[in-house]
Amino acid sequence: MAHLQPGATIGILGGGQLGRMLAMAAARLGLKTHVYAPESASPAFDVAAAHTVGAFDDADALAEFAECVDVATYEFENVPAGSVAVLAQLCPVRPGPAALEASQDRLAEKEFLAALGVETAAYLSVEDAGALIRAVGKLGRPAILKTRRLGYDGKGQIAIREGSDLAASFRSLGGAPAILESVVPFVKEISIIAARALDGGFAAYDATENVHVNHILSRSRAPAAVDSACAAAAVAATRKIADALEYVGVIGVEMFVVEEGRRKQGIVVNEIAPRVHNSGHWTLDGAVCSQFEQHIRAIAGWPLGSTKRHGAMVTMHNLLGDEVNTFAELLAEPGACVHLYGKTPARPGRKMGHVTRIFAKYED
Amino acid sequence: MAHLQPGATIGILGGGQLGRMLAMAAARLGLKTHVYAPESASPAFDVAAAHTVGAFDDADALAEFAECVDVATYEFENVPAGSVAVLAQLCPVRPGPAALEASQDRLAEKEFLAALGVETAAYLSVEDAGALIRAVGKLGRPAILKTRRLGYDGKGQIAIREGSDLAASFRSLGGAPAILESVVPFVKEISIIAARALDGGFAAYDATENVHVNHILSRSRAPAAVDSACAAAAVAATRKIADALEYVGVIGVEMFVVEEGRRKQGIVVNEIAPRVHNSGHWTLDGAVCSQFEQHIRAIAGWPLGSTKRHGAMVTMHNLLGDEVNTFAELLAEPGACVHLYGKTPARPGRKMGHVTRIFAKYED
Repeated sequence: MAHLQPGATIGILGGGQLGRMLAMAAARLGLKTHVYAPESASPAFDVAAAHTVGAFDDADALAEFAECVDVATYEFENVPAGSVAVLAQLCPVRPGPAALEASQDRLAEKEFLAALGVETAAYLSVEDAGALIRAVGKLGRPAILKTRRLGYDGKGQIAIREGSDLAASFRSLGGAPAILESVVPFVKEISIIAARALDGGFAAYDATENVHVNHILSRSRAPAAVDSACAAAAVAATRKIADALEYVGVIGVEMFVVEEGRRKQGIVVNEIAPRVHNSGHWTLDGAVCSQFEQHIRAIAGWPLGSTKRHGAMVTMHNLLGDEVNTFAELLAEPGACVHLYGKTPARPGRKMGHVTRIFAKYED
Repeated sequence: MAHLQPGATIGILGGGQLGRMLAMAAARLGLKTHVYAPESASPAFDVAAAHTVGAFDDADALAEFAECVDVATYEFENVPAGSVAVLAQLCPVRPGPAALEASQDRLAEKEFLAALGVETAAYLSVEDAGALIRAVGKLGRPAILKTRRLGYDGKGQIAIREGSDLAASFRSLGGAPAILESVVPFVKEISIIAARALDGGFAAYDATENVHVNHILSRSRAPAAVDSACAAAAVAATRKIADALEYVGVIGVEMFVVEEGRRKQGIVVNEIAPRVHNSGHWTLDGAVCSQFEQHIRAIAGWPLGSTKRHGAMVTMHNLLGDEVNTFAELLAEPGACVHLYGKTPARPGRKMGHVTRIFAKYED
């Protein structure tokens, strides 16, 4: 069924906070959710009409899950491609396999972007320690060695600096196929959160400016303080990517802003997330239609909602690890919108919640 | 426990759309919910971590429910007082019994308001047909005869007009104890949605203007087009009521606006709802902290959130009965925030969903 009717069931692979916020957005729209996740204490289970505890490579459990849902989606890009193939035979999976393929493998992602004419960091494939030595010779130092697969929040990557032992660096990533990327001399990091509908309709939120600490998103604000041509180029690149993937749903594209000459800003795409994205959490309180509802609308085959922002500036601050213990002060702060994900324990760096603030004036 | 910690469980009596939206608000704040309702297909079950199907007078099931929750609340005021008493022995119930007593019985409600010096329609208690004849003699016609208990959305009431057969009118309400109310010559209907915290803190949303059709709320807008003294008097009356009840949670107070002299507007309180209220649904998209989150914050013993409105005017339109079939057009309307409750079937007058719209300009 291309277009869902109210009362239909959306299947969500993954039971973390993204799945949780997707499930709540679906419920607002009169849709049921069925969440599939390996951990029995998954935060998304608390707000889903049904759930399955199952491994992502359990084909039988996935097939049973597919029987219960009208469309399936996922909250993270590292669902095994084979599992998605099992699902896709039984129900529509949105976004589709092309988006997963392009984002699961950093090399495939870079090649996909290069073929589209979208600028990325310079990169070379690294199959072994010898290839790493040759790649460093070509790209220079500093550079970043990343595993091709299963990297997120800084996991699966290591900086190659002056004096780094290349053989040891390659071994430290477990000898997995990797990619060497040159370091982009960026002036800021931004992301575009956008959605593409089943009929090809496209809507982007304001470019969002992001600050990472220890490779983990710490805070975002929208709109990003970039010039309008830069913001437009970022949206145009996102649309090009989404169109090329025949994408359905919300996509997050992380980019570096670089200065080209004295006044011109350019963008370099860093990563594609085929899902709702942490840097779009501000839309939950700060936009007419949140990224979560937008994703649900898109995968339901429904029209996209308004991406209009409330206020002059919206900020989002992640509550990482024991930052969540400040919840009482945050609840007492006038105008702060507090979100807690119901996760325990508060391990260092773990995403436990976030806070959104809406400002009447833009402040740099 | 006076103040909940994240991860605690809120018990909700009643599984309709109000319970559903309360459960989602609790989840945003990292709280679990356990919904208790008699109907196995209750909309709130879909977004609750746990649920119990049980009758409201099943003391054993209620006691078991109480064991599972850290605080209990309700989504409607017609929970039997005895059931709440059972609960209150086992866990905090917020708002407390005083609020239920004052709102379950129209006569007690009027007497409570009169004792506070809050203006209401003139009223007289009606125990039998003879009392009705005497009461109509005193209050005149037209007037409204209402059962003291279990009335909502126009149920349990009948207009007494010129020529009405009084004995037949009394019989039509099943002979239950009743109250005769004079008709208030109002110029508009408004409501105040406000919250009182455990520490006595108080916060009100903008006065909301309401239009009822066939006794059922059709649409609301905030702020109400009333003069500022009238809005202030409405908030002051609400605070007086909440303080007198030592209220904890969100309260909705329905009022008539009357014209006193040529330019002055006065208020006459019609009804107290000890719960989140349909006329506060606009706060879900149109205010920084929704009435649902506000209620959860209050009953959790947490500070109240910001009642600040987005935009210059926010409207809310109920989708009653088959109005819900317009959902596809509404989803396609730019800026319309569509909420569907997951209910079937769409019986005439049944509240199936609502639509919120935020406007940059106030239009009368």
